[in-house]
Amino acid sequence: MTDLTYADIEAAAERLRGAAHRTPVLTSRTANARSGGQLFFKAENLQRMGAFKFRGAYNALMRFDAAQRAAGVLTYSSGNHAQAIALSASLLGIRSAIIMPHDAPALKVAATREYGGEVITYDRYKEDREEIGRRLAAERGMTLIPPYDHPDVICGQGTAAKELIEDAGALDLLLVCLGGGGLLAGCALAAKALNPACRVIGVEPELGNDGQQSLRAGRIIHIPVPDTIADGAKVTHVGEHNFRVIQRLVDDIVTVSDAQLIETMRFFAERMKIVVEPTGCLAAAAALHGVVPVAGLRVGVLISGGNVDLPAFARFVA
Amino acid sequence: MTDLTYADIEAAAERLRGAAHRTPVLTSRTANARSGGQLFFKAENLQRMGAFKFRGAYNALMRFDAAQRAAGVLTYSSGNHAQAIALSASLLGIRSAIIMPHDAPALKVAATREYGGEVITYDRYKEDREEIGRRLAAERGMTLIPPYDHPDVICGQGTAAKELIEDAGALDLLLVCLGGGGLLAGCALAAKALNPACRVIGVEPELGNDGQQSLRAGRIIHIPVPDTIADGAKVTHVGEHNFRVIQRLVDDIVTVSDAQLIETMRFFAERMKIVVEPTGCLAAAAALHGVVPVAGLRVGVLISGGNVDLPAFARFVA
Repeated sequence: MTDLTYADIEAAAERLRGAAHRTPVLTSRTANARSGGQLFFKAENLQRMGAFKFRGAYNALMRFDAAQRAAGVLTYSSGNHAQAIALSASLLGIRSAIIMPHDAPALKVAATREYGGEVITYDRYKEDREEIGRRLAAERGMTLIPPYDHPDVICGQGTAAKELIEDAGALDLLLVCLGGGGLLAGCALAAKALNPACRVIGVEPELGNDGQQSLRAGRIIHIPVPDTIADGAKVTHVGEHNFRVIQRLVDDIVTVSDAQLIETMRFFAERMKIVVEPTGCLAAAAALHGVVPVAGLRVGVLISGGNVDLPAFARFVA
Repeated sequence: MTDLTYADIEAAAERLRGAAHRTPVLTSRTANARSGGQLFFKAENLQRMGAFKFRGAYNALMRFDAAQRAAGVLTYSSGNHAQAIALSASLLGIRSAIIMPHDAPALKVAATREYGGEVITYDRYKEDREEIGRRLAAERGMTLIPPYDHPDVICGQGTAAKELIEDAGALDLLLVCLGGGGLLAGCALAAKALNPACRVIGVEPELGNDGQQSLRAGRIIHIPVPDTIADGAKVTHVGEHNFRVIQRLVDDIVTVSDAQLIETMRFFAERMKIVVEPTGCLAAAAALHGVVPVAGLRVGVLISGGNVDLPAFARFVA
């Protein structure tokens, strides 16, 4: 495979024009006072379907040829990527099938169906979703678009950092939430091209630091499913395409605790008036809790999404 | 007094440039599907200090002459205007004193002090805040800027509708939250100038429909302090400057129930990922609950603010 470049991000941005929201860049005097830095929050919780995942999914589907469009798209996800694929496919008139665990939250299943996706359930304790995905893709001729380990997904996600730097100006540092690595890899591609001096740091949950371990080891490290409230970062390993970019362009990977994520959710709700899911708080938590020194720096902070059930959100912030 | 005009809004916009946030205009496919209209939400909950009130306060203080700046500003408010004056004064290096009830929520008192305001408490059951205001203004030589009944406050608030129409394009209808009438009067001035065919409708709480009564009676009607969760609209009468503009330019005033406000808060949190205070939901509730027909129309919806205590917010949305 050839290395992804900024030209791929630019092409993705063209495909997303008019389809994805150009989400606002928010600032907060209180966040600046608390951190000592000048923070620019890219609010992807205000993206369509509530997360940056729309960018990658829509970009991948826009690259389908006529035969692929006719046959449809398949994916496996219990999270935001499921809704991203269902919505993008529906907007483009493409059939979509989403493989979800049979015990996935009813709300997420309902949201995926509402966006027009066919939901196929499997027993996550007895069956392997990747094997089901491969079998269904073969049987139905559908194209599989996985949640993060895919060049088109990575490049779609990178458009978030492109917009952030265009709107905020040059940055000294960019902090990005890290789960499977789609957002981090894409944003690193954009940031290092637009702004070579900008350091790029990924932020993971303390108990799910497979990315940090991988970057240090120089190879992809697998861990058990981590126990964290950051459900979007409950991955066992970063993707292969993602890791190639991360190794090449990311300066460091740090971790934050679940307690820091909850405090950050509260800060966002109380002071910035936005609903952010736990995973979406990763990058901000690193800046607001001094995990990464930001004093005197212009810092981009990716807020990845806002899809949290209201009862859970109420418990976190009450 | 001379009639306010759009030129006054334009002058206010110049004074606010670089000081107020140009808040984003948000759209939601779900809100459009639910209402049948094309809704453009002006997110003033993302304004500095969390509400549109910053616009009017800052505009008023920017018009102070050297003597007024030296003597300082005084106001009475237990709500967002208190914080707006305290923050604006602090940014401009002006002393501020805020008269607040002795039993005002500790959080609001603390926020006002945090923004640099001197808080003067009074007993709301025994003392008259307007009389205290006049006395202190005389004693200290401070200029009193009331929460809504003031031309400079009205014109500052109107810049929100100016930005909304500039960003969203021409509208068929503009829905505006109505308490004392600062936002409604200012937005009507901007909308009718930029977009004469645009109807402008104010939205009040059902139990606090003094504005509706006043518009129908052709004179300002006073009511007892209304019982509603929309604390920013718990006013007994609209302002005189405000009413002059409202009579001249506002097409209608409608009401929504507290239950509709709560449903709208939930909608904003769950689907649009933003925290909106009950008062800030007034205009949106009218669109989402069919109080004002919006099918097929391009509709501007003012979200006035997001300052709600987290425990209360959690109770509303849980």
